[in-house]
Amino acid sequence: MNNITLKEIAAQLGISITTASKALKGYSDVSEKTKNAVIELAQKLNYTPNSFAVNLRTKESKTIGLIIPTLVNDFFSYVIKGILEEAKKRDYLVIILQSNEKLEFEKKQIDLLLNKRVDGILMSLSNETGDFDHIQSIISHDTPLVLFDKIAKLVNCSKVTINDKKAAYDAVCYLIKKGYKKIAHFRGSYIPQNSIDRFLGYKKALEDNNLTYDSSLVFVCENNEDFHDGYENAKKVMKEHPEIDAIFAVTDLVAIGIIKYFNEIEISIPERIAVLGFSNWFMSSVISPKLSTIDQPGFEIGKRSASILFDEINLKKNNLPVVFQSIELETSIIEREST
Amino acid sequence: MNNITLKEIAAQLGISITTASKALKGYSDVSEKTKNAVIELAQKLNYTPNSFAVNLRTKESKTIGLIIPTLVNDFFSYVIKGILEEAKKRDYLVIILQSNEKLEFEKKQIDLLLNKRVDGILMSLSNETGDFDHIQSIISHDTPLVLFDKIAKLVNCSKVTINDKKAAYDAVCYLIKKGYKKIAHFRGSYIPQNSIDRFLGYKKALEDNNLTYDSSLVFVCENNEDFHDGYENAKKVMKEHPEIDAIFAVTDLVAIGIIKYFNEIEISIPERIAVLGFSNWFMSSVISPKLSTIDQPGFEIGKRSASILFDEINLKKNNLPVVFQSIELETSIIEREST
Repeated sequence: MNNITLKEIAAQLGISITTASKALKGYSDVSEKTKNAVIELAQKLNYTPNSFAVNLRTKESKTIGLIIPTLVNDFFSYVIKGILEEAKKRDYLVIILQSNEKLEFEKKQIDLLLNKRVDGILMSLSNETGDFDHIQSIISHDTPLVLFDKIAKLVNCSKVTINDKKAAYDAVCYLIKKGYKKIAHFRGSYIPQNSIDRFLGYKKALEDNNLTYDSSLVFVCENNEDFHDGYENAKKVMKEHPEIDAIFAVTDLVAIGIIKYFNEIEISIPERIAVLGFSNWFMSSVISPKLSTIDQPGFEIGKRSASILFDEINLKKNNLPVVFQSIELETSIIEREST
Repeated sequence: MNNITLKEIAAQLGISITTASKALKGYSDVSEKTKNAVIELAQKLNYTPNSFAVNLRTKESKTIGLIIPTLVNDFFSYVIKGILEEAKKRDYLVIILQSNEKLEFEKKQIDLLLNKRVDGILMSLSNETGDFDHIQSIISHDTPLVLFDKIAKLVNCSKVTINDKKAAYDAVCYLIKKGYKKIAHFRGSYIPQNSIDRFLGYKKALEDNNLTYDSSLVFVCENNEDFHDGYENAKKVMKEHPEIDAIFAVTDLVAIGIIKYFNEIEISIPERIAVLGFSNWFMSSVISPKLSTIDQPGFEIGKRSASILFDEINLKKNNLPVVFQSIELETSIIEREST
């Protein structure tokens, strides 16, 4: 073990620990000669201040925690990138945990982060997260918390999302304006707020345009990590409702699965059936036909969430009151070949 | 601030701190009644052991650091997934940092992690990393280190890679066996070992098959985050060497850029020119034509790297000698439509 203490440095130079400490901090009441001797020896011995002791003194860890459902996902990759950029500006470190869409893991990960005494937590909830006691425990520990993307409306904290309902509403109105009349929806799981909101936006767009909502045209895609749900449900919808002329998919990954199946059975997109995705993953621009989709600003969501969290950490540190924010970032429709 | 101490719990119950501590740890010399009272009060007050104090005592942070060049990358997403899975098994947390392919950031991030006293570090080097003093500083701090993917042969530590030279050699031999004779190589930057090795494998395959190596058929693609280098160099090679019949690309991303350009100018793949990628990103299976590529086992690389690191952390903790390992994982060629 190579953990040299200040005590050892002081002993080797025959000075007091206080003087050695002052020398390293550049205090003016220590002579230049002593300062140089201490710095030189500290460098020679690879001395680093014991961060555990520093933490114990300052009660700060300069670390935040991030819990996301899955890592293998373009959207979350960009979110993390945004968060790391903000953390870097402030010399903060980020512990990243993956809930794998499991409530059980999420609970345990919160405990780990609270035990670690991180200065704040960023979270996007798992698909299973329908009660929020474990999220409340973050708040009752007085640890700043910002939820993003998959949030809980009932939890009292800052939140960063897009307006999923409006984005889905606009998307379906766009399809209707293009002349599509029989539009199926491949939705996400039943619990996550963003999946509910995208479904509600779809439904409202139909109603506002005098198209009948038909629940048999709604298919559930649970899996976030591959496109098989999209592929299998595309097979199903063609059997049960071959009359549809468009599909609005809850994610690009689901849309990719649909396109894959339609390409295989040679259904022409968008002439016979249009496909619209959600999120603007990189691959949506390289698949053939190129996928029309909704641009979900992951990088921006990460940056804003982190920046709000760091503000709240600072306010708390200075015993100032925190006012929670609910930010909704703008989205836009990206028209490509599939619609 | 809601950081209840054990002292406060003991005071409220009129017992000693030692007894309170023993009660929470379930020691048998504390009565059940006292145990229950301590546990109840600790829960009521949201007591968590002060991890800074625990760390100071155990000299363990139960945290490791991970530095990768970029997050927005299928391969690294799978690597992280593998690392987090191994960490979870051991209740370890992972601090993730992104060097953005910059040596400067990498140096600073190592300092941050060492100051944080992480128990070990996992790293894949940036494209700029040609000297290794900062990596050596990890070793001289006696902090276990495992390098993966983009490694430094000169650094004395455990390493997990694929055999890039052999993988590239096999890939180019495969193209030659398929009948391609004029094969260009879109290589990566000059510094990273894996980019050098893939180039050397390409060159050796040509030589071993009596094809002349021509340096004007080698193009450098520096950018890891988008496909423009592949796209632009495809344009260039068609102007300078329209006679080529195949391209071996250093990554799938580069290959995607090539396919994008060839699709635009209607060069048929693989009839006129074959394209072979490297890494097996998800999108390589959905682009049209589907990309043939080399399967690089990111998840496995992450798991093995983490598991070796945790072994070394344990050996160090028990003052046992560590023998460094160099693991080379197997790769395979995935034949799709582009070759």
